Amino acid sequence: MGIRVTVWNEYRHEKSEARVSEIYPKGIHGAIADFLGKDPEITVRTATLDEPEHGLTDEVLDNTDVLIWWGHMAHSEVRDDIVEKVCTKVLKGMGFIALHSAHFSKVFKRLMGTACTLRWREIEESERLWVVEPNHPIADGIGPYIELEHEEMYGERFDIPTPDELVFIGWFKGGDVFRSGCCFKRGYGKVFYFQPGHETFPIYYNEQIQRVITNAVKWSKPTIWLDKIEAPKVEPLEKI
Amino acid sequence: MGIRVTVWNEYRHEKSEARVSEIYPKGIHGAIADFLGKDPEITVRTATLDEPEHGLTDEVLDNTDVLIWWGHMAHSEVRDDIVEKVCTKVLKGMGFIALHSAHFSKVFKRLMGTACTLRWREIEESERLWVVEPNHPIADGIGPYIELEHEEMYGERFDIPTPDELVFIGWFKGGDVFRSGCCFKRGYGKVFYFQPGHETFPIYYNEQIQRVITNAVKWSKPTIWLDKIEAPKVEPLEKI
Amino acid sequence: MGIRVTVWNEYRHEKSEARVSEIYPKGIHGAIADFLGKDPEITVRTATLDEPEHGLTDEVLDNTDVLIWWGHMAHSEVRDDIVEKVCTKVLKGMGFIALHSAHFSKVFKRLMGTACTLRWREIEESERLWVVEPNHPIADGIGPYIELEHEEMYGERFDIPTPDELVFIGWFKGGDVFRSGCCFKRGYGKVFYFQPGHETFPIYYNEQIQRVITNAVKWSKPTIWLDKIEAPKVEPLEKI
Amino acid sequence: MGIRVTVWNEYRHEKSEARVSEIYPKGIHGAIADFLGKDPEITVRTATLDEPEHGLTDEVLDNTDVLIWWGHMAHSEVRDDIVEKVCTKVLKGMGFIALHSAHFSKVFKRLMGTACTLRWREIEESERLWVVEPNHPIADGIGPYIELEHEEMYGERFDIPTPDELVFIGWFKGGDVFRSGCCFKRGYGKVFYFQPGHETFPIYYNEQIQRVITNAVKWSKPTIWLDKIEAPKVEPLEKI
Repeated sequence: MGIRVTVWNEYRHEKSEARVSEIYPKGIHGAIADFLGKDPEITVRTATLDEPEHGLTDEVLDNTDVLIWWGHMAHSEVRDDIVEKVCTKVLKGMGFIALHSAHFSKVFKRLMGTACTLRWREIEESERLWVVEPNHPIADGIGPYIELEHEEMYGERFDIPTPDELVFIGWFKGGDVFRSGCCFKRGYGKVFYFQPGHETFPIYYNEQIQRVITNAVKWSKPTIWLDKIEAPKVEPLEKI
Repeated sequence: MGIRVTVWNEYRHEKSEARVSEIYPKGIHGAIADFLGKDPEITVRTATLDEPEHGLTDEVLDNTDVLIWWGHMAHSEVRDDIVEKVCTKVLKGMGFIALHSAHFSKVFKRLMGTACTLRWREIEESERLWVVEPNHPIADGIGPYIELEHEEMYGERFDIPTPDELVFIGWFKGGDVFRSGCCFKRGYGKVFYFQPGHETFPIYYNEQIQRVITNAVKWSKPTIWLDKIEAPKVEPLEKI
Repeated sequence: MGIRVTVWNEYRHEKSEARVSEIYPKGIHGAIADFLGKDPEITVRTATLDEPEHGLTDEVLDNTDVLIWWGHMAHSEVRDDIVEKVCTKVLKGMGFIALHSAHFSKVFKRLMGTACTLRWREIEESERLWVVEPNHPIADGIGPYIELEHEEMYGERFDIPTPDELVFIGWFKGGDVFRSGCCFKRGYGKVFYFQPGHETFPIYYNEQIQRVITNAVKWSKPTIWLDKIEAPKVEPLEKI
Repeated sequence: MGIRVTVWNEYRHEKSEARVSEIYPKGIHGAIADFLGKDPEITVRTATLDEPEHGLTDEVLDNTDVLIWWGHMAHSEVRDDIVEKVCTKVLKGMGFIALHSAHFSKVFKRLMGTACTLRWREIEESERLWVVEPNHPIADGIGPYIELEHEEMYGERFDIPTPDELVFIGWFKGGDVFRSGCCFKRGYGKVFYFQPGHETFPIYYNEQIQRVITNAVKWSKPTIWLDKIEAPKVEPLEKI
């Protein structure tokens, strides 16, 4: 069955903005699911905000190894009880990949414990993502950098805890830098934040970006799951 | 005026359990405020759960550089809006020192993003806190270890993000170890978790423990404050 | 061909001390090679100090993915040019596993940049190795801890750089703790230090210890190799 | 007496290249000593390669709290015994600040344990140093970034261990990024690498650069010294 990935998308821009739906006619989730689905190790499904329970029912979460998250304009509409369920699942082992504007998603902010603020602008500038850890599994096959012709600028200071591993640093033509690929461990789960992916640019069709996301899925898949979050009272192992 | 410290205590055990009130007749907060107050660089006040707004009014928080937190049996009674205010204040620069069972406080869990679970028992065993970073300001003046005759055991695995700095590792007679002194940065704020301090033992009268907490206050005091948590749109600095 | 492991052993205690040779009649390297060799993913060879070039010829190093190192009484006899070659190989991608008293080996000290000092005693006390990162690949299959009936005590402060990942903390009956399982990245190579393994105890026959070492081999095997250590002059990618 | 700083400079470019001596008539060390000497907390002296013992006699090192290092064309001429003495002193507590091309100095490479390679070019491009940790003492008073009109480009991948703290990321006009301000702990000593400072540009007259170096001196000054590097045999603290 391989790695069971659920690609979650807010799926609002695509419905209301022609320039977005032209780039992503099947939604951003559809585009991501398409390339992931070609990997023989990966089984993919999608879920979106406006589905019942945002598409994240217990049945879906129980069958998800890695959850990919794209959201932007409707973070506040995500139900707190579902945020709670998703975060708990991460702490038990589920991988979580936050893409682009998901830096401000409730789930990511909660896993970080910080405000996740940054500086930004949208002027169609180019970005170059430099690989800082060339032998990290997430950078596998990428080479020294990824070029993006147009991307929204996200700039430092990015208010996150110091990442456990910093894999990419973004260079923006307009003069900014960004910690664009960051790994965190939270509980039994692995979290990867990846900055590229503005809705008005065809970022998720870029083969190197697809490779990074595929690599991140494989890196973040759980090896073991925690059964139950608990703080047990235990007996001493030595005579005191 | 020096460093303005607020010592927050749940202050319930002291009211309901004679063995606790005998040890801490002025409350745990009173005992901590007493030794901190002797330091000429520190101005101290206290706040407790059952005061209006848990004693953490805007006026109090606006005049707090470092907040010390002790809670245990009533974590759930702490109002979410006040947790929110405290966490925001930390992200803006306020130091936060979580003592002992505050590992399960809403504020600490939220700053960590994890469940903060651990293993525990209470059999009056001895603990020895080993200094792992002898030149860390929090370990200043401590020597190689601190001995505690009796302490509640907190054991690994402690579900926290990897600390930015690990200062103490606890050894328990009954056979367990614990990351007992951990530093984290969150936003502009510094956070220190320190494990000793069970309510039925006179831990906070131990001079080395007092020294660690005093050191932690000085380490976590803000150097600069963030005015406002925001994600500003900015102009490019270079022509694109 | 799988992962090509070379187990290097100083191989002196076994020749001069009966109590050691009784435990390790084929040498410590032989014992380690024996259990690793049973893993279908691993191809194993050995090398020892008194062989020509300490058994670490270019041909051997060129065909080694992971080098395991055990040394104690003769660190100073290891030739500097071979230390240099081994370190360079690590920076290019070779995994390096330093066992027990290899904390003081030239190779490990050089990769760390610190003195790697610690406190120690040898009184046949018990050790319990606690797993701090239960979902780390090196802890796979281990459970909450490993019990060792007798081990030499290695205690804090251990003078190493802060590990990238801390997997095990050792508890010693005599009252000490130790960061017993530490991961470091150096160049393209992964380094694991693992404290158990005193020559007078049958540590390397313990199945959990064997499991940790086998896990560490798989974790530290190179994914990609760096061709050449160089600092190239490069052309600008943007017009300035 | 304050913080006793020794500014070490290779001092060769200034003697052989007019364009360098015009910018730094008193040598790079002289320029750095000049601005540091104005700080009432700092006492400064200088030392250079061609002095006896490179100016780093025992007497000098014994009276140095923080050593600043600038070198470039003559790294190999630095005597190994003096490198050894300097590194030992760092492990005992001395602060060490490696400037610009000192990334390739013997001392820095040895403290890192890596090759410290990077990509580079020299085309008079501009650099902008972004502050990633705005409340770090080294960034105190700097604001969001430092602009340098012309600087040699140093680009990723920079082969260093993951820094304990990453304070600055450099943006270069030509399209590269660099971890330009990195903190490391080694033994009892604190190490700061700071990338700006090519000899043909008047970088060390920039007031913000001066502020960073001054901040780094204060950050890296030892709080306690380790008397002796040793691995003592110790008695058990508990009955076994």
